[in-house]
Formats: sequence, C-alpha cells, structure tokens
Amino acid sequence: MAVTSNYSIGVDLGGTNLRAAAIDATGHVLGKSSGHTDLQDGRDAVVDDIVTAIRALRDQFGQAELTGVGVAVPGFIDIKNGFIVGSNNLPQFDQFPVRDVISQHLGTPVILENDANAAAMGEKWLGAGRDVDDLVLLTLGTGIGGGIIVHGRIFHGFVGMAGEIGHMTVIPNGNPCGCGSQGCLEKHASATAIAAMARLLQLGDNLTSKQVYELALGEGNHAHKARQIFEAMGTALGIALANLVNVFNAPLYLLSGGPLPAWEFFAPSMFRAVEKRSFTYRNTKTRIEKATLGNEAGLYGAAYLPFFEAGKL
Amino acid sequence: MAVTSNYSIGVDLGGTNLRAAAIDATGHVLGKSSGHTDLQDGRDAVVDDIVTAIRALRDQFGQAELTGVGVAVPGFIDIKNGFIVGSNNLPQFDQFPVRDVISQHLGTPVILENDANAAAMGEKWLGAGRDVDDLVLLTLGTGIGGGIIVHGRIFHGFVGMAGEIGHMTVIPNGNPCGCGSQGCLEKHASATAIAAMARLLQLGDNLTSKQVYELALGEGNHAHKARQIFEAMGTALGIALANLVNVFNAPLYLLSGGPLPAWEFFAPSMFRAVEKRSFTYRNTKTRIEKATLGNEAGLYGAAYLPFFEAGKL
Repeated sequence: MAVTSNYSIGVDLGGTNLRAAAIDATGHVLGKSSGHTDLQDGRDAVVDDIVTAIRALRDQFGQAELTGVGVAVPGFIDIKNGFIVGSNNLPQFDQFPVRDVISQHLGTPVILENDANAAAMGEKWLGAGRDVDDLVLLTLGTGIGGGIIVHGRIFHGFVGMAGEIGHMTVIPNGNPCGCGSQGCLEKHASATAIAAMARLLQLGDNLTSKQVYELALGEGNHAHKARQIFEAMGTALGIALANLVNVFNAPLYLLSGGPLPAWEFFAPSMFRAVEKRSFTYRNTKTRIEKATLGNEAGLYGAAYLPFFEAGKL
Repeated sequence: MAVTSNYSIGVDLGGTNLRAAAIDATGHVLGKSSGHTDLQDGRDAVVDDIVTAIRALRDQFGQAELTGVGVAVPGFIDIKNGFIVGSNNLPQFDQFPVRDVISQHLGTPVILENDANAAAMGEKWLGAGRDVDDLVLLTLGTGIGGGIIVHGRIFHGFVGMAGEIGHMTVIPNGNPCGCGSQGCLEKHASATAIAAMARLLQLGDNLTSKQVYELALGEGNHAHKARQIFEAMGTALGIALANLVNVFNAPLYLLSGGPLPAWEFFAPSMFRAVEKRSFTYRNTKTRIEKATLGNEAGLYGAAYLPFFEAGKL
C-alpha cells in the first residue's frame, strides 16, 4: 500500500526494545512496529532486526515516497563517522560503524542520533515543545540523559557530546559516579538513584521508582521515607535545572522518564531549589514541565531528522 | 580625516571607565578614547559622555563610512527594548531606554549588548577564539560574567539572560549570594571572593586579588594561605567549567579578569576538578585557556556587532 505523501522512518534502539515508525511530514503516524532487542544474539542479529523493521515499513508505505531513515540510540554519537561511542547499554556497538552498515543494507541514507537528543527533537516537533524554538529535555531513567534544542535544531557541541546533563555536579561531595566524578545529577535524581535511596532507607532491595512512588502514596513511616527520597531527588534536580536556566535562558525545560508519575512528590522541592538558585527563573516566564510524548518522543524525533535534512521541515 | 574603508564604533561602559574605539571590518583599530565614568553626575551626564565620545570618533573618521555603533554595558539587556535591567554597577540606568536615547542623540542606530557577551564576541573576532565557532568566556571581576558564542554568534536565550554563569551553583551550601541563592560560582571564584577569603584567613581586610597573588608568590605562612585561597577558587571554577563542558561540549573555554595573573596558583586545582568531573573533557581536545584581549575584548566585541548586523562580517 503506497501512500501519496512523503514519509520517513524513525527507529528507537533501546537496551531492551527496538521500535520503528513510519511518519509523514505533518507528524501523522502511518505505521509502527516494535520488538525486543536481543543483544545476546550479537551485534549482527540486532542490525538485522533494525534493517528488517525498516524494510517492512518501507515495503508497506513505498520506496519512492521514503524521505529517509533516522535511528536513535543510547550513547554518544560520533556524528561525523556515524559510530556509537561508549554506550553502557549497547557495548557491542562501541566503535562499530552502525550508520553505514544499516545504510548499506537498505541502500538508503541513515541519520544516527543520540536517544535523548532525538527525544528532545520529538517533543519540539510533536510534543510539549511545539510552541518554542529552544528547550532542554531531561530523561530520567537508569541514568539521566539530556537533549538540547537551540533555534529549533539539536545542539550537538563540537564532537556531539553536548547535553551530558546527567553528569552535571549537583553535590560536589555526593555519590560516586561511574564517569569518575561524584555528585553527578544522575547519581541523585535518576530512577536508579531513587532505588538506591530506597535501599539506604531499608524500604526494599530492588524497588523500582514506581514502587517507591506507590509507597509515598500510602501512610505511615514507609510513606514518610519514600517522600523523603523524592524530596532529595527533587532538590538535586532543582539545582541542575537552576544551572541550566541560568546558562541557557531557554523558555522550556522538560522532564520525562519512569519517575515522572511521582511529580507531586518531587516537584515541590525541585521548584523550591530552582526558585532559590535562579533569579532568571524568578524573573522570567520560564516553564519546567512534564514531557508529553513519553516513550514515543525518541521515535518521533528520529523520524523528524530525515525531513529536516531534506529541507522539508 | 575621513578613511576610505567602513568602520564601526564600539563603546564599553563600565562602572568606572568609559571607553570607545573606531575599528574597521578587519579588526584594525583606527582610533580610541577613554575616560572616567562619573556616575555621580547622573544618568544624563553619562549619556552625554557616551554620545560625545562617539561623536568625536565619528567626526574624525567620517559619517558616511560609519557602519554603526555597538555599546557594551554591565547588567542584563532587555534586547527587544534596548534597556539595561538590574545592573548593580549602573543602577541609574535600570529600565532606562539607553539604546534609543543614544540613538536619537546621534541620529544613527545603536546596538546594546551585555559586556561579557561583547567580550566573548571580541575574543571570537580578534582574540583567543578566532579559530573556533563556539566558545564560553568567563570574566572574573567583582562578580563573574559569562558570554557564550554558538555558531559564531552571541547566544542570548529567550529574554537575553543566557550565560549567567556567575550564578551557577558550585557548592550547594556555600556562601550566600545577593541573587538569593548560595554557593554561586561568583561567591567562590571572583576577585571579590578571593578578597573575602583573604579576610577570612586574616591576610588583610582590603586586599585585591592582585595583592593576594603577590602574597602567594612569597614564602612562609602568608604565602601558604594565599595559595590555599587560589586552590579553593580554582576548585570552584573547575566544577563550573566541568558543568559547562558537559552541557555545551564547546571546543574552547576562556577566562579573563583581575585574578588571571594568579593562573599558576589556581589552574592546577581547576584542571583537577575539570578532569574529575567531565569525561567529555578527558576524552576530547577541549581547551581551557586565558583570554588574550584583556580589557579590550568588550570594546572590540561591541564594535563587531554593527558589522554583523549589517551583514558585513
């Protein structure tokens, strides 16, 4: 079934999920697919899965109308060479020319992008950031990713490593981080950090941030402890957001990820910290809000990239 | 004496000095003037001084060849309206339409810019940043100003308040700041902060950062204390720089201002902090260096702006 309008294919390659979507230039989703990323099967099998998912959508919606393919992946992207560099979730792809390999399989150009950057672009295109040209997105997960949109475009920095907001120092003598530092934002405000604090407070050894949230909704000592965790997490987040507001003066900062349902518990301390630490925040109409596209943001952002590169958006 | 090439006039209005220069598009300085800013005489007298300085250069180098006038001032700039907003050094100019008033006096358009932004642009045009498109400048003075150049242009943010790096939190429970926060970079790494630490260590009540530097050059207990001060100052600076490197991934970060001669004493702890707190720094050819234009940077950057606006650079 060929459609008349042009479309692009976005792929979001996570540590556990592989999703693809065919989307037209107005943001209308023509079709989607999703599957499990089985890294155990090796790199070539994952590449085959990606290529197969893209081919299936291309066969369905037409070769001629395909503007291009965008692939969002965790980790740093060596933009120039199309490599993934140092992804904890995808170690087998380190230094592997994944962009060119997929491109050769498909016979069509592929754009590679960091997943948080793609998510920020997705929110700008079709989500909470539609009405602004500049925004910063923080994705709270295992770590904390950052995506920065400046003048409507992804801000990459000179080797593509801009937006490493998860490694901003928020507590100089805080928790140690695998990056070699200590007190990094993601060691105090990620889903993983929430779980670690739950362990410290003897709430449980393997709680998810969702389970800690559910405890916070209850009553008694456990609820009190769970709320303390979100208060500490919100304060750390607020310090980082205040720094970002002071440096970027963007109109919009967005948060997404697993801990978002606990907004009611972390937002008060977060806003207190931002108000205290940023007179720019206090004196402008700066907004700090929930992202609206959830898990789809990276997929949409990846699909946006070929349109932009082709000058169609 | 009229010259054949086009030129622009840059003005740098400080709390104590008023300087102006006529500069051509190649960065050649045709002429300069400087005087004392006597704020005691009132706002209108200062505006008259500015207008007189500009007129003198315009009379000398020709009306027809004048591309435009750029004025660098401390404080936030309301870019749209050409106001200075909340400058501690120039309280009489708060909310005063200084751009339009100067422009009316001269009968020529005027571009208003924050002094740290102008200095960053000056370093990009004619100084340490000539070979890069992106840089961040920190000016260490009474406070700490920040100027950010992205893709060769001043990065303003949505209301012109980007680059407030002096108010980045580096020590969450650190010294209180007039902005309402505590632990702001400028309360731990500015010339004023160095003087305050000298007082805390009983080195003297009214030492300049230069005098503290001279103590550090000596021997004995006072030298040891003075070096401790620069070590603490360097560590605070390093935390902020690491955050900037992680967020911007710019190729170049520049420092300027009174404490720069003490580089040998603060740079070691600064680089230790940056190396610890930024894997981007450790894994890229990011440079942190002294700015090269000194006090002239803002003047040159102000003169650059009319050329840029006219599409001549």
